[in-house]
Amino acid sequence: MPDFEYIGYAAGILTTIAFLPQAWQVFRSRSTGDISLTWAITMIAGVFLWLCYGFTKNSMPMMLANSITLLLLGIILWYKIRYR
Amino acid sequence: MPDFEYIGYAAGILTTIAFLPQAWQVFRSRSTGDISLTWAITMIAGVFLWLCYGFTKNSMPMMLANSITLLLLGIILWYKIRYR
Repeated sequence: MPDFEYIGYAAGILTTIAFLPQAWQVFRSRSTGDISLTWAITMIAGVFLWLCYGFTKNSMPMMLANSITLLLLGIILWYKIRYR
Repeated sequence: MPDFEYIGYAAGILTTIAFLPQAWQVFRSRSTGDISLTWAITMIAGVFLWLCYGFTKNSMPMMLANSITLLLLGIILWYKIRYR
Protein backbone atom coordinates (compact mmCIF):
# COMPACT_ATOMS: atom_id res chain seq x y z
CA MET A 1 0.00 0.00 0.00
CA PRO A 2 1.48 3.42 -0.92
CA ASP A 3 2.24 5.60 2.08
CA PHE A 4 -0.29 8.26 1.17
CA GLU A 5 -3.14 5.76 1.38
CA TYR A 6 -2.66 5.97 5.17
CA ILE A 7 -3.59 9.67 4.96
CA GLY A 8 -6.85 8.62 3.33
CA TYR A 9 -7.57 6.04 6.04
CA ALA A 10 -6.80 8.56 8.81
CA ALA A 11 -9.07 11.10 7.09
CA GLY A 12 -11.86 8.54 6.72
CA ILE A 13 -11.62 7.43 10.34
CA LEU A 14 -11.84 11.03 11.60
CA THR A 15 -14.78 12.20 9.46
CA THR A 16 -16.65 8.94 10.18
CA ILE A 17 -15.99 9.20 13.94
CA ALA A 18 -17.34 12.77 13.85
CA PHE A 19 -20.66 11.35 12.61
CA LEU A 20 -20.99 8.58 15.19
CA PRO A 21 -22.26 10.67 18.17
CA GLN A 22 -24.99 12.16 15.95
CA ALA A 23 -26.18 8.76 14.72
CA TRP A 24 -25.98 7.34 18.25
CA GLN A 25 -27.98 10.24 19.72
CA VAL A 26 -30.73 9.81 17.12
CA PHE A 27 -30.70 6.04 17.67
CA ARG A 28 -31.10 6.43 21.45
CA SER A 29 -33.51 9.37 21.64
CA ARG A 30 -35.51 8.62 18.46
CA SER A 31 -35.76 12.40 18.35
CA THR A 32 -34.82 14.14 15.11
CA GLY A 33 -36.69 17.45 15.40
CA ASP A 34 -33.52 19.55 15.22
CA ILE A 35 -32.12 17.68 12.23
CA SER A 36 -32.90 19.16 8.85
CA LEU A 37 -34.43 16.76 6.31
CA THR A 38 -32.87 18.80 3.50
CA TRP A 39 -29.45 18.39 5.16
CA ALA A 40 -29.90 14.62 5.50
CA ILE A 41 -31.00 14.12 1.88
CA THR A 42 -28.29 16.43 0.47
CA MET A 43 -25.62 14.62 2.50
CA ILE A 44 -26.87 11.18 1.43
CA ALA A 45 -26.76 12.19 -2.24
CA GLY A 46 -23.31 13.78 -1.79
CA VAL A 47 -21.76 10.92 0.15
CA PHE A 48 -23.22 8.42 -2.34
CA LEU A 49 -21.51 10.31 -5.18
CA TRP A 50 -18.21 10.44 -3.21
CA LEU A 51 -18.53 6.68 -2.86
CA CYS A 52 -18.97 6.29 -6.65
CA TYR A 53 -16.06 8.67 -7.21
CA GLY A 54 -13.94 6.58 -4.81
CA PHE A 55 -14.64 3.56 -7.03
CA THR A 56 -13.52 5.43 -10.16
CA LYS A 57 -10.33 6.45 -8.32
CA ASN A 58 -9.92 2.90 -7.03
CA SER A 59 -9.47 4.40 -3.56
CA MET A 60 -10.11 1.95 -0.73
CA PRO A 61 -10.20 4.66 2.01
CA MET A 62 -12.90 6.57 0.09
CA MET A 63 -14.95 3.43 -0.54
CA LEU A 64 -14.81 2.34 3.11
CA ALA A 65 -15.31 5.73 4.78
CA ASN A 66 -18.16 6.77 2.49
CA SER A 67 -19.92 3.39 2.83
CA ILE A 68 -19.95 3.66 6.62
CA THR A 69 -20.98 7.34 6.58
CA LEU A 70 -23.76 6.46 4.12
CA LEU A 71 -24.97 3.74 6.49
CA LEU A 72 -24.98 6.18 9.44
CA LEU A 73 -26.83 8.80 7.38
CA GLY A 74 -29.31 6.11 6.32
CA ILE A 75 -30.04 5.36 9.99
CA ILE A 76 -30.54 9.08 10.70
CA LEU A 77 -32.87 9.48 7.70
CA TRP A 78 -34.81 6.36 8.67
CA TYR A 79 -35.48 7.75 12.18
CA LYS A 80 -36.21 11.18 10.73
CA ILE A 81 -38.96 9.76 8.52
CA ARG A 82 -40.20 7.23 11.10
CA TYR A 83 -40.28 9.37 14.30
CA ARG A 84 -40.33 13.01 13.22
CA MET B 1 -11.39 16.12 -18.06
CA PRO B 2 -12.39 12.44 -17.69
CA ASP B 3 -16.13 11.92 -17.32
CA PHE B 4 -15.91 10.53 -13.80
CA GLU B 5 -14.37 13.79 -12.53
CA TYR B 6 -17.87 15.25 -12.89
CA ILE B 7 -19.07 12.74 -10.29
CA GLY B 8 -16.46 14.16 -7.91
CA TYR B 9 -17.54 17.73 -8.59
CA ALA B 10 -21.22 16.86 -8.08
CA ALA B 11 -20.30 15.07 -4.81
CA GLY B 12 -18.24 18.04 -3.62
CA ILE B 13 -20.97 20.55 -4.45
CA LEU B 14 -23.57 18.52 -2.51
CA THR B 15 -21.55 17.87 0.66
CA THR B 16 -20.33 21.49 0.69
CA ILE B 17 -23.87 22.85 0.17
CA ALA B 18 -25.03 20.69 3.09
CA PHE B 19 -22.58 22.61 5.32
CA LEU B 20 -23.56 26.11 4.21
CA PRO B 21 -26.77 26.55 6.29
CA GLN B 22 -24.85 25.52 9.43
CA ALA B 23 -22.03 28.00 8.83
CA TRP B 24 -24.53 30.72 7.89
CA GLN B 25 -26.61 30.12 11.03
CA VAL B 26 -23.53 30.35 13.27
CA PHE B 27 -22.38 33.46 11.38
CA ARG B 28 -25.75 35.21 11.86
CA SER B 29 -26.64 34.12 15.38
CA ARG B 30 -23.10 34.00 16.85
CA SER B 31 -24.61 31.17 18.90
CA THR B 32 -22.75 27.85 18.99
CA GLY B 33 -24.02 26.32 22.24
CA ASP B 34 -25.50 23.26 20.51
CA ILE B 35 -22.39 22.59 18.41
CA SER B 36 -19.91 20.16 19.88
CA LEU B 37 -16.30 21.39 20.08
CA THR B 38 -15.11 17.79 19.74
CA TRP B 39 -17.14 17.44 16.55
CA ALA B 40 -15.71 20.66 15.09
CA ILE B 41 -12.08 19.72 15.87
CA THR B 42 -12.49 16.12 14.65
CA MET B 43 -14.07 17.34 11.40
CA ILE B 44 -11.36 19.95 10.83
CA ALA B 45 -8.62 17.34 11.29
CA GLY B 46 -10.48 14.85 9.05
CA VAL B 47 -11.29 17.31 6.26
CA PHE B 48 -7.70 18.62 6.35
CA LEU B 49 -6.44 15.06 5.82
CA TRP B 50 -8.95 14.49 2.98
CA LEU B 51 -7.56 17.65 1.42
CA CYS B 52 -3.97 16.28 1.67
CA TYR B 53 -5.19 12.95 0.29
CA GLY B 54 -6.86 14.81 -2.60
CA PHE B 55 -3.46 16.30 -3.45
CA THR B 56 -1.79 12.87 -3.46
CA LYS B 57 -4.56 11.62 -5.78
CA ASN B 58 -4.25 14.77 -7.88
CA SER B 59 -8.03 15.12 -7.59
CA MET B 60 -9.27 18.65 -8.27
CA PRO B 61 -12.82 17.97 -6.92
CA MET B 62 -11.34 16.74 -3.60
CA MET B 63 -8.99 19.71 -3.32
CA LEU B 64 -11.72 22.26 -4.03
CA ALA B 65 -14.53 20.71 -1.97
CA ASN B 66 -12.33 20.04 1.06
CA SER B 67 -10.77 23.53 0.94
CA ILE B 68 -14.19 25.19 1.03
CA THR B 69 -15.52 22.83 3.73
CA LEU B 70 -12.36 23.49 5.77
CA LEU B 71 -12.97 27.24 5.46
CA LEU B 72 -16.59 26.84 6.61
CA LEU B 73 -15.51 24.64 9.54
CA GLY B 74 -12.87 27.23 10.41
CA ILE B 75 -15.56 29.91 10.62
CA ILE B 76 -17.68 27.66 12.86
CA LEU B 77 -14.72 26.90 15.13
CA TRP B 78 -13.77 30.58 15.30
CA TYR B 79 -17.27 31.54 16.49
CA LYS B 80 -17.34 28.55 18.82
CA ILE B 81 -14.17 29.75 20.58
CA ARG B 82 -15.05 33.46 20.39
CA TYR B 83 -18.75 33.41 21.43
CA ARG B 84 -19.38 30.16 23.28
